[in-house]
Amino acid sequence: MHPLRWGDPAHATALPDGARALVEAVFGPAPATSAHDATSETELPGALPPPGLSASLLSSLAEVVGEQHVRTDDEIRRLRTRGKSTADLLRARAGDLDDAPDAVVRPGSHDEVAEVLRLAGSHRVAVVPFGGGTCVTGGLAARREGFAGVVSLDLGRLDSLVDVDRTSMTATLQPGLRGPRAEALLAEHGLTIGHFPQSFEHASIGGFAATRSSGQASAGYGRFDALVVGLTVATPTGTLRLGTAPANAAGPDLRQLVLGSEGAFGVITEVKVRVRAVPEVKVYDGWRWASFGDGLAAVRALAQSGLRPTVLRLSDEAESAVNLADPDSIGGGAGGCLMIVGYEGAAGRVDAERAAATALLEGLGGTNAGEEPGRAWEHGRFAAPYLRDSLLDLGVLVETLETATFWSGVDRLYADVKAALERVLGDGGAPVLVLCHVSHVYETGCSLYFTVAARQAGDPVEQWLAAKTAASDAIVAAGATITHHHAVGTDHQPWLSDEIGEVGVRVLRAVKAELDPAGVLNPGVLVPLDGA
Amino acid sequence: MHPLRWGDPAHATALPDGARALVEAVFGPAPATSAHDATSETELPGALPPPGLSASLLSSLAEVVGEQHVRTDDEIRRLRTRGKSTADLLRARAGDLDDAPDAVVRPGSHDEVAEVLRLAGSHRVAVVPFGGGTCVTGGLAARREGFAGVVSLDLGRLDSLVDVDRTSMTATLQPGLRGPRAEALLAEHGLTIGHFPQSFEHASIGGFAATRSSGQASAGYGRFDALVVGLTVATPTGTLRLGTAPANAAGPDLRQLVLGSEGAFGVITEVKVRVRAVPEVKVYDGWRWASFGDGLAAVRALAQSGLRPTVLRLSDEAESAVNLADPDSIGGGAGGCLMIVGYEGAAGRVDAERAAATALLEGLGGTNAGEEPGRAWEHGRFAAPYLRDSLLDLGVLVETLETATFWSGVDRLYADVKAALERVLGDGGAPVLVLCHVSHVYETGCSLYFTVAARQAGDPVEQWLAAKTAASDAIVAAGATITHHHAVGTDHQPWLSDEIGEVGVRVLRAVKAELDPAGVLNPGVLVPLDGA
Repeated sequence: MHPLRWGDPAHATALPDGARALVEAVFGPAPATSAHDATSETELPGALPPPGLSASLLSSLAEVVGEQHVRTDDEIRRLRTRGKSTADLLRARAGDLDDAPDAVVRPGSHDEVAEVLRLAGSHRVAVVPFGGGTCVTGGLAARREGFAGVVSLDLGRLDSLVDVDRTSMTATLQPGLRGPRAEALLAEHGLTIGHFPQSFEHASIGGFAATRSSGQASAGYGRFDALVVGLTVATPTGTLRLGTAPANAAGPDLRQLVLGSEGAFGVITEVKVRVRAVPEVKVYDGWRWASFGDGLAAVRALAQSGLRPTVLRLSDEAESAVNLADPDSIGGGAGGCLMIVGYEGAAGRVDAERAAATALLEGLGGTNAGEEPGRAWEHGRFAAPYLRDSLLDLGVLVETLETATFWSGVDRLYADVKAALERVLGDGGAPVLVLCHVSHVYETGCSLYFTVAARQAGDPVEQWLAAKTAASDAIVAAGATITHHHAVGTDHQPWLSDEIGEVGVRVLRAVKAELDPAGVLNPGVLVPLDGA
Repeated sequence: MHPLRWGDPAHATALPDGARALVEAVFGPAPATSAHDATSETELPGALPPPGLSASLLSSLAEVVGEQHVRTDDEIRRLRTRGKSTADLLRARAGDLDDAPDAVVRPGSHDEVAEVLRLAGSHRVAVVPFGGGTCVTGGLAARREGFAGVVSLDLGRLDSLVDVDRTSMTATLQPGLRGPRAEALLAEHGLTIGHFPQSFEHASIGGFAATRSSGQASAGYGRFDALVVGLTVATPTGTLRLGTAPANAAGPDLRQLVLGSEGAFGVITEVKVRVRAVPEVKVYDGWRWASFGDGLAAVRALAQSGLRPTVLRLSDEAESAVNLADPDSIGGGAGGCLMIVGYEGAAGRVDAERAAATALLEGLGGTNAGEEPGRAWEHGRFAAPYLRDSLLDLGVLVETLETATFWSGVDRLYADVKAALERVLGDGGAPVLVLCHVSHVYETGCSLYFTVAARQAGDPVEQWLAAKTAASDAIVAAGATITHHHAVGTDHQPWLSDEIGEVGVRVLRAVKAELDPAGVLNPGVLVPLDGA
């Protein structure tokens, strides 16, 4: 990916003139100081700190992975600096490269990963596992203090489909496979994982597992952590191989301890996932509801009905009006709230599920809006991060955050988070846009995904941090989760102990100390450092 | 429960004469030395070791929970000795009470549990959490060496339905609630957990959670660990409260570390579970297949079709012939293999699912056997453990064991476990009956549940141990799980490190050391002791 932007800028769609005008109308003209000129990007700003690893360690690493797979040049160090949160992009645009790794090491096998971890432990070098680089919670910015340097452990060479078991409907994949490549390899077998998060185009299998990723079709296929049935993990003190059966009672499910461990316990070197047949049919229906409340009641009824649409997404009034899912027609949405209900699978099953869901939704007062909104959503489903780049260019602060809770707490959570964001960013009467949708639905609750936009003011990183802090405090006060699918990283860590308690934090520390006694794995990410 | 038998002997059905005759025909007449005379049970055999706790500790415990809730009398100590495996029953019948606790303590609240754990830690007294006492893997026989005594922590007073959240479709229950009482309390709200393991009549909510229990309707409702969305756990070093959302990405899912922890990390004092509406309709269809292989292919096709019957159970040829699920007609089964496919829920959904499943099964060559086999199964679904008592009375060694793996490994697992059991128990030409069924089905695999019967010979405990060892070795060699739903206890511990590896065992030890530094919680259960 580009060091200052999401994905490949060549793939980004230019912001339509209408949207540009809308931005000016809502937020006022961009102050000259905050707007960014994309044409100036031929000269990337900022100087890298000098690479800090000793020649002898670099030579040892080269012996393990091969000389061409140890890089310390500026280009790769820039590319491996931090992830893709708005703060990350703003820092990069401002030339702040303090978190650049000293070297990028690309192992070619599980054994090479294990050997690199051993070397890192004995040299007290921090190791940051790198898959797709799409993290939006600071998970790629490990703590540097107390370490001899930082190595970005790029898993890109571990990109094979290791095994397909058609009888069990499982596939074993290496962690460096990016979403599209993994799906293409499986499609040759007529199979799919069905995991399509917004980061799909760039994110990796290992990252999906390490962060408990959840995709846009999670209602039907399940979260990534629900798809994983086996894992191989290289830790500094040995290899963990898990997964003898779909489920068992042989003690706690240690797979669920690795899933979400964000590279702090070990490096995932193989993932065995449940797969499904590539769906014969995909159909996405649009539904309109008079209010977000009506739509939420309908989403809940559907989730608790035993019916399982593949995609279930509900935008609130503001998001429905802006119609963010379809950048081509921003601002052109109709009134009320838009819901997308998608069905994928064998034709007969899709027809039956769609008929039953349609009857249920009509009974609840929904208006069928045909297939057009669903087609528009499908067309634009991975586009929002590109749109963010365009808005940042115009001096707009735009970022997302997400949470989840049980159904009975959703109304309060929605109101409190929205109020917190509006209060902080709208201080002094500045216009703020807070959009929200439900994209991950369970029988007992759902996620809320907020998109926030305001005119950049002062230091935009500090500006966002204040808003995020207020939103996070509201989330924790409402008893909800600090993150439904973006992981903890460094950004969510201040709220982790509110969520899992002091005892939960001690459990994470104990597991880390056992597997990574030198503490070299992603220091400061996920597991709060002692005394933090 | 009775100290020598399953459940209340008054509820046990006498073995029909036909079955008695069948037992003699298959296994030969009972040797006088092994057959057990149930009428002699007015005088329970065996002497209890003298209770070993100091008067001052007993008095401190009484201060915490109330004097009437600290018992050291013989009756309660007998009742709380071990669980309900065949070996447990045989040892009790032989008068071996070495594992009797010194005292039974019945806390009335979370805080009382926490305080008892604190006292136990400071006095180095082992604590064995006790729910329903139905464990069949030695989970109630904690290691006594190195401790000042053993307390059975009876959770029976924690038996409230704490909260029902109809919006979220969740209920919060205390751990001491037994299955029937929990269901009765929820039924007042029109709700059900849908968790019906064979131990249902006696087992407890806390036990279901601590052992990752799986019920007979797991195909539709899910395993107990899949139903749990929140947990409160008292540990010697603090309280763990988990569950902010149905699912999240706030680090590893620590709920899945508590589920299956078998009282070794802490004592579960509250469980929040997903509930469903009491089904409008329940219908169970019988299906016949020419062979177990044909039946397995059909079960797999159903599991991978997207259809979700509530109950899915397939007996192999031997079990279908014996028809163990219906003790009233043992030996009266027809040829081939019997499958039960049950549907529960709203009438319309049941009709639709049943029609779709029927079409699929007919297409695969199954013969619909009507509703009678399903009714017989439902009638006898909790009866097998009572039947075991009757067979033990006749000098038959009878026990069960279970495992699970991915579909591609099921044929080998079935053949190897069966062969191992037949080899050891049939040594010298003795008749052995090995029956098997599939009762828990996933998209990627299934469980195998074996029932084994042979004439008792020599020391029946040693006889079974040899057979169980051979079967466990075969399970591990086949790459399957040592237990799908009976937990590790002490019996499965020799194979745990084969399953989760030395690194996995170290993780369990590290978590235990953090939460229970004095090591007083269920010592020797689940987590192998250092050096073991």
